[in-house]
Amino acid sequence: MASTHPEINRALVLHPGGAFNYQDIPIPTIESDRDVLVRIVATGLCGSDIHYWQHGKLGRYEVTQPLILGHESSGVVVATGSNADGLKPGDHVAVEPGISCNVCSYCRSGRYNLCRSMRFAATPPVDGTLCTFYRVPAQCCFKLPENISLRDGALVEPLAVAVHACRLGGDLQDRAVVIFGAGPVGLLCCAVAAAFGASKVVAVDVVEERLSVARQYGATHTCRMQDVEGAESMKNLVGLDADTGADVVLDASGAQPCLTCGIEVLAPGGTFVQVGLGKPAMEFPIGMVCDKEIVFKGSFRYGPGDYKLAIGLLGSKRVDVDGLVTHTFTFSKAQEAFQNVVSRNGIKSVIFGPE
Amino acid sequence: MASTHPEINRALVLHPGGAFNYQDIPIPTIESDRDVLVRIVATGLCGSDIHYWQHGKLGRYEVTQPLILGHESSGVVVATGSNADGLKPGDHVAVEPGISCNVCSYCRSGRYNLCRSMRFAATPPVDGTLCTFYRVPAQCCFKLPENISLRDGALVEPLAVAVHACRLGGDLQDRAVVIFGAGPVGLLCCAVAAAFGASKVVAVDVVEERLSVARQYGATHTCRMQDVEGAESMKNLVGLDADTGADVVLDASGAQPCLTCGIEVLAPGGTFVQVGLGKPAMEFPIGMVCDKEIVFKGSFRYGPGDYKLAIGLLGSKRVDVDGLVTHTFTFSKAQEAFQNVVSRNGIKSVIFGPE
Amino acid sequence: MASTHPEINRALVLHPGGAFNYQDIPIPTIESDRDVLVRIVATGLCGSDIHYWQHGKLGRYEVTQPLILGHESSGVVVATGSNADGLKPGDHVAVEPGISCNVCSYCRSGRYNLCRSMRFAATPPVDGTLCTFYRVPAQCCFKLPENISLRDGALVEPLAVAVHACRLGGDLQDRAVVIFGAGPVGLLCCAVAAAFGASKVVAVDVVEERLSVARQYGATHTCRMQDVEGAESMKNLVGLDADTGADVVLDASGAQPCLTCGIEVLAPGGTFVQVGLGKPAMEFPIGMVCDKEIVFKGSFRYGPGDYKLAIGLLGSKRVDVDGLVTHTFTFSKAQEAFQNVVSRNGIKSVIFGPE
Amino acid sequence: MASTHPEINRALVLHPGGAFNYQDIPIPTIESDRDVLVRIVATGLCGSDIHYWQHGKLGRYEVTQPLILGHESSGVVVATGSNADGLKPGDHVAVEPGISCNVCSYCRSGRYNLCRSMRFAATPPVDGTLCTFYRVPAQCCFKLPENISLRDGALVEPLAVAVHACRLGGDLQDRAVVIFGAGPVGLLCCAVAAAFGASKVVAVDVVEERLSVARQYGATHTCRMQDVEGAESMKNLVGLDADTGADVVLDASGAQPCLTCGIEVLAPGGTFVQVGLGKPAMEFPIGMVCDKEIVFKGSFRYGPGDYKLAIGLLGSKRVDVDGLVTHTFTFSKAQEAFQNVVSRNGIKSVIFGPE
Repeated sequence: MASTHPEINRALVLHPGGAFNYQDIPIPTIESDRDVLVRIVATGLCGSDIHYWQHGKLGRYEVTQPLILGHESSGVVVATGSNADGLKPGDHVAVEPGISCNVCSYCRSGRYNLCRSMRFAATPPVDGTLCTFYRVPAQCCFKLPENISLRDGALVEPLAVAVHACRLGGDLQDRAVVIFGAGPVGLLCCAVAAAFGASKVVAVDVVEERLSVARQYGATHTCRMQDVEGAESMKNLVGLDADTGADVVLDASGAQPCLTCGIEVLAPGGTFVQVGLGKPAMEFPIGMVCDKEIVFKGSFRYGPGDYKLAIGLLGSKRVDVDGLVTHTFTFSKAQEAFQNVVSRNGIKSVIFGPE
Repeated sequence: MASTHPEINRALVLHPGGAFNYQDIPIPTIESDRDVLVRIVATGLCGSDIHYWQHGKLGRYEVTQPLILGHESSGVVVATGSNADGLKPGDHVAVEPGISCNVCSYCRSGRYNLCRSMRFAATPPVDGTLCTFYRVPAQCCFKLPENISLRDGALVEPLAVAVHACRLGGDLQDRAVVIFGAGPVGLLCCAVAAAFGASKVVAVDVVEERLSVARQYGATHTCRMQDVEGAESMKNLVGLDADTGADVVLDASGAQPCLTCGIEVLAPGGTFVQVGLGKPAMEFPIGMVCDKEIVFKGSFRYGPGDYKLAIGLLGSKRVDVDGLVTHTFTFSKAQEAFQNVVSRNGIKSVIFGPE
Repeated sequence: MASTHPEINRALVLHPGGAFNYQDIPIPTIESDRDVLVRIVATGLCGSDIHYWQHGKLGRYEVTQPLILGHESSGVVVATGSNADGLKPGDHVAVEPGISCNVCSYCRSGRYNLCRSMRFAATPPVDGTLCTFYRVPAQCCFKLPENISLRDGALVEPLAVAVHACRLGGDLQDRAVVIFGAGPVGLLCCAVAAAFGASKVVAVDVVEERLSVARQYGATHTCRMQDVEGAESMKNLVGLDADTGADVVLDASGAQPCLTCGIEVLAPGGTFVQVGLGKPAMEFPIGMVCDKEIVFKGSFRYGPGDYKLAIGLLGSKRVDVDGLVTHTFTFSKAQEAFQNVVSRNGIKSVIFGPE
Repeated sequence: MASTHPEINRALVLHPGGAFNYQDIPIPTIESDRDVLVRIVATGLCGSDIHYWQHGKLGRYEVTQPLILGHESSGVVVATGSNADGLKPGDHVAVEPGISCNVCSYCRSGRYNLCRSMRFAATPPVDGTLCTFYRVPAQCCFKLPENISLRDGALVEPLAVAVHACRLGGDLQDRAVVIFGAGPVGLLCCAVAAAFGASKVVAVDVVEERLSVARQYGATHTCRMQDVEGAESMKNLVGLDADTGADVVLDASGAQPCLTCGIEVLAPGGTFVQVGLGKPAMEFPIGMVCDKEIVFKGSFRYGPGDYKLAIGLLGSKRVDVDGLVTHTFTFSKAQEAFQNVVSRNGIKSVIFGPE
């Protein structure tokens, strides 16, 4: 099921040391019957992309050879193998950027995000999606319904991160949820927690502007972190139960005061979910974790069903991401997009193209 | 269903400042149809008893008025109300030392250990069991089968702590479990993990003697903490899977190196259970917790079914506690028992009586 | 905290044989510090009320002495004990009609609906709520927020039934849910499934009018049972995935064809929840249950958190029950209400008063 | 990593109509880097093998072309691809006989036994293991430790069935478990339930001889089904709690009286697991399932971790299968093995070879 398409695969390549340039690279071919070739249309930038650019490494991964960044992408199918779950040229898709081995004990038991052989886009040495054509297996291609634009399709990846984290929080129906950090992932956590039926969604950040955005994405209450003096103060400020507190805390900030306050503000038996990467080590109020029998969970990327649910939330309008993409850039101005994120302008920056 | 019994209720009373004396206190009467009056026969000493004696407080609890210590007790029923679950004078029982309110949302939802109105023996201002007669509601009295002695009945409490912690670790069948700390609770965790089917039970401590005891209580491997230089070193020493590591870690030590090493040695997707009280705050390798999507759980006392299962494990000999009680004392020499624990002699010290 | 209130407790009494009469009965007094005396304002009628009237028994329960029916009630607090969770005279409340023992192993482990000593209103020999004053312990009184009327407060009970059943169905986010039976409980299941994020809510009934009501309560698709010829036919009619089928089936009909079709239409790994009482025995496609590894769950009343969540759903308008009460009756015309339910007029009949 | 091996692949082929003959078929080649070629050493016979032979079909599967039976096999690795999880020629392995697609939503979410594209040995049209050489992907080969013989390796498959069923029963620690049917799978369920810590394991069958065998495989109590007159009678006979009953029932019989009695004897909140295939439809006491809020689960084959755990149970001697293989046959006398199973001689019949 091949279709005609341009002959050039243009990529934005990051070099060790931090320089970008554009290169034409080979167009991937359909090799397996599960392969899907996608023409990339929109790619959101993530903190990890920025980190690789500015620091050349992230955790145990290091940019030691040229690397294509980008992993929050949507696109249009241009060719498929013979067994591609019904996908066909022209389909709009969101791309799940991690290719797991499918046969290890993690993959077999429904925890493919923990696969030791995961090949994840834009994580050295695996190239990312900032190029014209990108090949993934069919299970990594999620067809977008007509009412989800390709722009919003690029938000499915961070939305899946939020879905995964909120699911780790357990049943959120009628729960009081506090979310630290009102960047893109924190805002999406607010929106998902609200969609999951949380009765109270408290967004906490140091930047007032982000908090007013949070109120558009499901937050029922907001709170400036600098106004908080301990958990009792926060309970008062946002109307949490004085005797117990929050049922669930999601931390999308990675900041020490948020970890401390988050554990304090949790009700006995509550759950704390650490979303994404924080510092390697932080101070942890472990006595309180024991006394209140708190469950603390690390959340890593996303797993079975998260992409599907993210698309379901968007398609049904239970999550509305209008306004989340505040800045768009053409592929030829991709470096401006990176710079824009560094400058902390707006919420989400998306690169369209290559044209 | 009253029975005759001695007229004196002799108690060991701790006074603010740390002095003990013996006092005769009123004998509790059967007031509710659920009440059970127990003549205390054996009481184990716990770290918290020692702490109140030496420091006058523990966490948010402080000895501001005379307090009877002791909460690990077995005894003989001497009288009951009319609705006491079939308990009758002469029954040997283990006493669950926490009386929950039964009507709050925690109690109603099966998490009574988190009850905000819990009255827990030997936690100020609630008196403990180091006295002749102690009254509890029937649901806190667990009949001991004939093949469990009253001495071992006093071990049901710490065994229930171990049961609760091991249950928080999830299904342990065929799992590799690492247990830090080989004091009484750590040893009982070893025994319970083995009874729960763990294929590998690794005991870790700094004291070689404790490790040799651990090998009698289910540990398949042992490891001196001072011989460990990072998680890879521990994996080598005790034969854990080099690629992944331990499935579950239970920390009964409360020591910083154990927390750090425990998170490192855990396999992706693993569970860490912090048993009992550690310091208020410790350094936490939170980046690794996220990367490996670890679940970290505080364990607090015990909850529904834990006492019953502890007794089931003892009665069926799936857990054998012979040798765990290394020192016994008469009630009149109770202070020597306290001193013995401070001196770290042996494993478990038990006070028999009052005579 | 007593308050003045009328001196008469008027009750509608069902006698063995099926005759009703009105009697003045003693007003309950506040005996325990947890007692709450409620003046009943609105009481919905349930199939079990009708059954006791018409058949004198239900399952193992039989009307062998005069019995007050009614268990779906709201009212106003008129007096309380000293420890009544902050409830005070004048508070509007929904009454949970089952008083569990709180101390058995079911109650202690969070499954109080299975308590063997449960005293449930209008289940012989326990009197129900069709009277002026009814006494319950504080944990059975749920304060209604201002935006929930006392009429809707009487719907909290059947809504809690639906909440309990839907929770047994597992996470419903983005799931395809089929609900058989569009009577009051089935309709409320539709509404709750929609609130819980089901992407497809299929209501099935034989009565077209009930199906059009279902579309107002969250059903995204409807289907007349008589138009269904096997599961494939149903999948076609309502757009379920042809390869798999429904993720969850809730049966609120108790009809054999619905049980059979429900198992057939379930996807492998799906969950079937039988809501409330059906016949004692039915034919069960057990081969398919094994092949598809289906989980079949009986749902019995409601348990921890269900009332709270039901009120949360109403208060937040995530469930809107406007229009569900189609007929109201004064207490003096209560028998007409019973007759109205027998005649299958409308959806829910509610009795107001005694005046 | 190829090794030398005989040039002939001898197979026992079942033809439509029920005739067997021996044929030499092509030796599979290593095509993928995950492929493992196994020389089959021992193969147990299962009821489904017999069913295909005698009836030509089972459920929706029919023998319409020549078919090789057998799916309970152990063997020796003779060749592997380059990425075969460290397996190498000479390794003794148990063969998991189902090859799932690994990419569908069932496989991705840890429920590969429900994969719609599963290719399962000896299920038409997929050939089974009664041949010299059989090829499977590495994830279907489980290395046997030295203390598990190849004969016992052939029992890993039915043991995995029992492990899967017992796991569906939930935590069995200190539970009272009733197992209907003391054929091979029922006996293994007894052994696994005992290993999982059940305090009471009740085996029920109509054949006294099977019950005496059950007592060697973990049953603490046995009961002839013909001696049972209702659940109360069974509770008396085997000492189950008169007020509640069994915590878990596993039915490995597929007989109507066992289904009925099993639901009756279950305690409120209990779990019933139907192991393997029964009749297409049976009478189901659904009223009791609702009243007691019972969970009824179909169990289908085995899933993630079941083979690994089965081998762990054997290797650690927590399950001892000595004596379970009562009859062995050479490959050239394979038809006698089939006949032996039909004649219900002994417990398990195993075919060794081809020589």
